Amino acid sequence: MGGDGVFASARRVVTREIEASLTRVEEEEARALIAATTECQRVFVLGAGRSKLAVDGFAMRLTHLGLTAHVATNVTTPAIAPGDLLIVCSGSGETPGVVAITRQAIRAGARVAVVTATPDSALAAQADLVVRLREYGEDHQLSASTQFVGTLFEQAAFVFFDCLVMVMQRTVGATAEDMFARHTNLE
Amino acid sequence: MGGDGVFASARRVVTREIEASLTRVEEEEARALIAATTECQRVFVLGAGRSKLAVDGFAMRLTHLGLTAHVATNVTTPAIAPGDLLIVCSGSGETPGVVAITRQAIRAGARVAVVTATPDSALAAQADLVVRLREYGEDHQLSASTQFVGTLFEQAAFVFFDCLVMVMQRTVGATAEDMFARHTNLE
Amino acid sequence: MGGDGVFASARRVVTREIEASLTRVEEEEARALIAATTECQRVFVLGAGRSKLAVDGFAMRLTHLGLTAHVATNVTTPAIAPGDLLIVCSGSGETPGVVAITRQAIRAGARVAVVTATPDSALAAQADLVVRLREYGEDHQLSASTQFVGTLFEQAAFVFFDCLVMVMQRTVGATAEDMFARHTNLE
Amino acid sequence: MGGDGVFASARRVVTREIEASLTRVEEEEARALIAATTECQRVFVLGAGRSKLAVDGFAMRLTHLGLTAHVATNVTTPAIAPGDLLIVCSGSGETPGVVAITRQAIRAGARVAVVTATPDSALAAQADLVVRLREYGEDHQLSASTQFVGTLFEQAAFVFFDCLVMVMQRTVGATAEDMFARHTNLE
Repeated sequence: MGGDGVFASARRVVTREIEASLTRVEEEEARALIAATTECQRVFVLGAGRSKLAVDGFAMRLTHLGLTAHVATNVTTPAIAPGDLLIVCSGSGETPGVVAITRQAIRAGARVAVVTATPDSALAAQADLVVRLREYGEDHQLSASTQFVGTLFEQAAFVFFDCLVMVMQRTVGATAEDMFARHTNLE
Repeated sequence: MGGDGVFASARRVVTREIEASLTRVEEEEARALIAATTECQRVFVLGAGRSKLAVDGFAMRLTHLGLTAHVATNVTTPAIAPGDLLIVCSGSGETPGVVAITRQAIRAGARVAVVTATPDSALAAQADLVVRLREYGEDHQLSASTQFVGTLFEQAAFVFFDCLVMVMQRTVGATAEDMFARHTNLE
Repeated sequence: MGGDGVFASARRVVTREIEASLTRVEEEEARALIAATTECQRVFVLGAGRSKLAVDGFAMRLTHLGLTAHVATNVTTPAIAPGDLLIVCSGSGETPGVVAITRQAIRAGARVAVVTATPDSALAAQADLVVRLREYGEDHQLSASTQFVGTLFEQAAFVFFDCLVMVMQRTVGATAEDMFARHTNLE
Repeated sequence: MGGDGVFASARRVVTREIEASLTRVEEEEARALIAATTECQRVFVLGAGRSKLAVDGFAMRLTHLGLTAHVATNVTTPAIAPGDLLIVCSGSGETPGVVAITRQAIRAGARVAVVTATPDSALAAQADLVVRLREYGEDHQLSASTQFVGTLFEQAAFVFFDCLVMVMQRTVGATAEDMFARHTNLE
């Protein structure tokens, strides 16, 4: 395909970078997050900017799977408590507002899982569970993404959470029909 | 208070208009909405713009009262079903996106309550229950509000819902301690 | 009105409390906030929970007045900079996530105005400008509100901002037609 | 890799499906959307559920690129007008609330671009510009995705928009430094 267009060539770079990053997610870390998610009382998700978009998309699917999920800062979100899990999504692991709210969850006795590109961050240091989702370039070199800072992490996070959903459909025994019946009809 | 400042004089007009509008809410309509809210399975709220702000504030307090409340269009909101109540807040009663979503709720078999300034609107026509919250001026003349269109309705709606909460605290037997325990700690 | 219903009696308490609180807002503080809002480059608003609803409602009206307004944490919100004003709305003045983000705005060189029920709070201490909006009971006693904690502040804030809008319509010379032309038509 | 874990095997399916779908995006359709986006006055984005997450992520990056972008239904979003572009993201192309709001944009004289998995949908029929983003399985068969309905479209849309951003960085001449300077500092 020598006559590649500008879109096709961008698409090739981006999908290779996502592939490179997701391939390096540790199976054990992903499974630990699945276990924590299915075994807790209620799941709360937290993020800022596009990382919030990624983890909000996960919260929707958890609802479809029949789990109880809440987005931190939504008006109907109740108090988090022991037995609950907070899943924080942050590339830098240092977003000030997110760090401040995570501290509240810890104080309340909840478990905290952090999905981050920065394992040596403030958020990762406070977490019970860390999933490392690092930015790799097309050439599989760490931090060699050619996309705008954070973009690859956010893409990888969006897709990563959907991979968990695919696994959890079997874990919790949810059929597509079950999930569709729980999908909002107010759109 | 002859030396009234610009703020004080605006404040006087606005609080009088709110008072004039809320005084004319029918006790029966308010009580019917309280009954519908406490007796249904789950409450869903829907609005656009500043009417959405008013009804979202109500959804938060319903959570604090121990009821199950969801905001239409939030990612974790499940499918509405028979036994559920949709509370729609719309001054004009004609907001196209809101009308379209309300139709979905009716199709799904849910009850619909509409809080509106326009009793002869599309939304009111489709509702099982209507609360009329009309715009009155300081001089208690209908539609004589001196505020920007819709503003008085939105203010009155915000305060109206909080009046319902005050009544419902007794109805459902929720103490301030109960409510505080359910208030989000992730802010 | 001996035959008062439960709604009417709640309505009477609530509107009196709002009146009692707003009457005590200092004209100078309100005017200083109006001046800061109309003279800055761009306005950013920040809050959590129902305080966020109140200040978000203000941001919408600022847009209608022809000013540039952004809600902190919305996806299209740009970086705040010197010349910009951050308006923070917080009853307690201590909301951790809000405090953390306010610190970022100060670091970026923006001016900060805080509308709060708690003048000796962390947020008020950091602000260039404070508007005190305290909770008064029906009997005009401080902190004697009979409503759930924070409720009166949130109501008073929602209405307070609309009083500013009424004044600013004259300050900036915006007619209802001007404002309506800027009102979103995508609802 | 015989010893594949459940996560790794889900990840393989998902990334292959995204690749299969994005590979089939028409270069001309992608380029037409880039041209429409960079040449219009202002961009407005609209979606529901997870499609909204995808297009909201794009709106953020447009802001970083120095374009003016608004999210339909956000409180600070102004009226759309001739010269503006509405980008609608919807897998089914039939979401009732989204269709109703799109109709408003057309009535207001704005251009409409639709990114959809369903080219023969109500939304596509009304659009000035359509980008087809269809769901393909691992085996490159149309509609053979093994993920929950709509999931692949939402993933592909999230990544698709980021590919446009990569191209537009060159088109509009935005460096990573320019973009970072516009990135919100209130998180």
